[in-house]
Amino acid sequence: MVEVIPHWLDKQAELSPHETAIEIPNQHVVTFHQLRDESRRFARKLSNKGVSEGDHVAIHSNNSLDMVLGLHALSYLGAVAILLNTRLSETELTYQLTDANVSLVLTSVEAKQFIATVNQSYQICTFEQVHLHNELAISLKKELNLDELFTIIYTSGTTGFPKGVQHTYGNHWWSAISSALNLGLDHNDKWLVALPLFHVGGLSILIKSVIYGMPVYLMEKFDVEQVDQGIKIDGVTIVSVVSVMLERLIDKLGESKYPASFRCMLLGGGPASQTLLERAKKNDIPVFQTYGMTETSSQIATLSQKYALTKIGSAGKSLFPAQLRIWKNGKIAVESEVGEIQVKGPMVSRGYYNNEIANQKTFENDWLKTGDLGYLDQEGFLYVIDRRKDLIISGGENVYPAEIEGVLAAVPGIKEVGVIGKQDDEWGQIPVAFVVRINKELSIEEILTYCRKHLAKYKIPKEIYFVPSLPRNASSKLVRYKLEGLLKK
Amino acid sequence: MVEVIPHWLDKQAELSPHETAIEIPNQHVVTFHQLRDESRRFARKLSNKGVSEGDHVAIHSNNSLDMVLGLHALSYLGAVAILLNTRLSETELTYQLTDANVSLVLTSVEAKQFIATVNQSYQICTFEQVHLHNELAISLKKELNLDELFTIIYTSGTTGFPKGVQHTYGNHWWSAISSALNLGLDHNDKWLVALPLFHVGGLSILIKSVIYGMPVYLMEKFDVEQVDQGIKIDGVTIVSVVSVMLERLIDKLGESKYPASFRCMLLGGGPASQTLLERAKKNDIPVFQTYGMTETSSQIATLSQKYALTKIGSAGKSLFPAQLRIWKNGKIAVESEVGEIQVKGPMVSRGYYNNEIANQKTFENDWLKTGDLGYLDQEGFLYVIDRRKDLIISGGENVYPAEIEGVLAAVPGIKEVGVIGKQDDEWGQIPVAFVVRINKELSIEEILTYCRKHLAKYKIPKEIYFVPSLPRNASSKLVRYKLEGLLKK
Repeated sequence: MVEVIPHWLDKQAELSPHETAIEIPNQHVVTFHQLRDESRRFARKLSNKGVSEGDHVAIHSNNSLDMVLGLHALSYLGAVAILLNTRLSETELTYQLTDANVSLVLTSVEAKQFIATVNQSYQICTFEQVHLHNELAISLKKELNLDELFTIIYTSGTTGFPKGVQHTYGNHWWSAISSALNLGLDHNDKWLVALPLFHVGGLSILIKSVIYGMPVYLMEKFDVEQVDQGIKIDGVTIVSVVSVMLERLIDKLGESKYPASFRCMLLGGGPASQTLLERAKKNDIPVFQTYGMTETSSQIATLSQKYALTKIGSAGKSLFPAQLRIWKNGKIAVESEVGEIQVKGPMVSRGYYNNEIANQKTFENDWLKTGDLGYLDQEGFLYVIDRRKDLIISGGENVYPAEIEGVLAAVPGIKEVGVIGKQDDEWGQIPVAFVVRINKELSIEEILTYCRKHLAKYKIPKEIYFVPSLPRNASSKLVRYKLEGLLKK
Repeated sequence: MVEVIPHWLDKQAELSPHETAIEIPNQHVVTFHQLRDESRRFARKLSNKGVSEGDHVAIHSNNSLDMVLGLHALSYLGAVAILLNTRLSETELTYQLTDANVSLVLTSVEAKQFIATVNQSYQICTFEQVHLHNELAISLKKELNLDELFTIIYTSGTTGFPKGVQHTYGNHWWSAISSALNLGLDHNDKWLVALPLFHVGGLSILIKSVIYGMPVYLMEKFDVEQVDQGIKIDGVTIVSVVSVMLERLIDKLGESKYPASFRCMLLGGGPASQTLLERAKKNDIPVFQTYGMTETSSQIATLSQKYALTKIGSAGKSLFPAQLRIWKNGKIAVESEVGEIQVKGPMVSRGYYNNEIANQKTFENDWLKTGDLGYLDQEGFLYVIDRRKDLIISGGENVYPAEIEGVLAAVPGIKEVGVIGKQDDEWGQIPVAFVVRINKELSIEEILTYCRKHLAKYKIPKEIYFVPSLPRNASSKLVRYKLEGLLKK
């Protein structure tokens, strides 16, 4: 049975017309009633630009109210939103626009010039231009069919061509509900979004807002001062972060504390270091470690707060409607055995757009083969070891970069570290580390001395490079293939 | 796309093994892990009794832990549970067992003798007998397909034969999620069940417990002392009641108050009187008025607490995934116009079991025609006027029994009142009232004097009978057709 629900923004505008939907700090707030009216107006103007049901419309923008309106407007038209990373190169942009069969690109004014250089064959339109259009008196969607496609987001794959992950309304719905069953639903909640809305981690909060009737504290980008103020003064109760953001927030926090109403620091974007988790714990920050990816429409496993202290480093258990298993040699792995993490559930994407080869490789009997490595402990808690594609095989031994990074991050004087494999005639691959130092006194010999104490010999980086910063994507996740680029220089 | 989730009790046992699932006051608690193990054991024993996937198994029991085990056990087998009202007469029981194609009746020891007299053609088994069986080493359901049938509950229709309302796993799932989106989800919640589990109002709490990971405070039946203790001492935060229960709770409360942690008195089972709502308000009881029926798998509209004072008497708005409209003369009624309440959503039953005629009459384009009358005010809040089948038409004027009852309930000296229509040669029908007095001093003339002040002439009861009590069903709802029986005596 295909489930149909009322259009979620219409419904929330009916239930909570005067409640805040979007709060832009230091600027203004938008109620659900206003958001609905503005989004519907924007939809009717887009219709005047020729957008209709089933069309693929790209959005190229940093976080903004216009971007939110654009997204909801497309849902009122039954059009599909392709969310573009604003950091993409021209080549990458052209690839995604072509691959996704985009008929129109919506963009912010600043980005327009850049987009225009990409390819003359795309119709490009700024949000401002749309606002100036007249509205067409068309009828808009009153209901959402949960089986229908809403968004396509390309995965920042480290190798090969990116793949367009398709999300139905149902995927987003189930993701929001799964999170609520895990974190609880409090009518005083306010969720801060500093992650880009063009990634699923940011987008998912926007959709939770509409389904829960919860205000979103929307920031254009991560700003440590503003996040600190959001939590301490503006009533933010939940923040989604990646490790590097949390690190900066703790630095900023100093001796101060967050108020008791702040209930969740949702930490995603890859395994966190023990050091970071312990710093958070010392500062009484309620960290919830999560595991997820674009294909799972945001997190699919989360460590509940009640286990934060006893299961440090774990990503917890899969969310209520989801299933998770460790797969090794064609069967379910035994306890503590490392294998591929596979997941299943109604929040998992039905597949990549227009990419049958990748679909056949990635999905099997409704299970998504994540390519990530992990194990379950004796109580069923997930520990994510690493992304399989980053696996370093050195002299026949498996070496997981994240493990080495976790150890190096604990070296006094090291701020950040990234590890990759380097081709080596003798060993096949060797681990190599890129280190950002707090100050220049730290020497390679000191690092190696520490390593010899904490790592098996084959895991010790054979080369260590000091760098001023590490390459990160828009979600602040480490981009390992760019480290490979550094090696080649 | 048919949604599949892990078996909900398995999943909750994985997420919250040591948390309380069921608390039987003054007796013992059962954790989710224990509930899972016991239910699976019970399933394997039932299998030894010949129960297998797709079988229809009736449960005839008052609230008990065995009844809970039986229900979950059937879900592990993929069998369908037919929940029988323990107050049914022999004729009624036989009708339902036959209509639902029941192959086995599970019953409590006390009820067995009664059941046995019903019909010799049914296999009847007490919970105790099942416990004594050996377990068959069969494989149990690991997943739930949300499209599959889980329960059938017969509606206590006031006329004609009862109809078996089918609920899929999905209906129950969406009902639980809808309620969470309305009431919020708090990890400290504990929901008291005094309503019978064989009605959807009670059953739905059991399913919420499994999905939320929330303890249920399970009572065999409503007991005012025990409910009062549950809220004041045992940490109950939510209670589901009907008007008559709330009335007694307020009487018991006297000058005392409930603790601040008590956050929701969910009031269902028909429109509540203004007097009752004002008494509750005076006692700081957070009443949430609801509207729902067996076909909607529990409530489908609820008045949020924030509107409790401004919209007194309203059942609020339809829950997030639901739609509600007022239908009048083949189109949507205008604001404030009374018409038939129609509802749609993934919690609404797909139809009655084996009853195509009723289905055609009741469902149209996925909308359920409830037969109830109501209107929406200018802000879209639902006011339920009455059940259409109870409508009294007198001299061409529509008279709603609930309206007259609401007025009479406010007469000093009246404890309870029920109103029905009586056939009349002159007017077609006339309203007739049955009154339970607090003491015998109140006279008919005093009641009529009050009525003349508060009711249009055609609405004033033409006959008033004093009775010691009113006929109520197991959910404490007034059973009007039994009042008609009194008239005929």
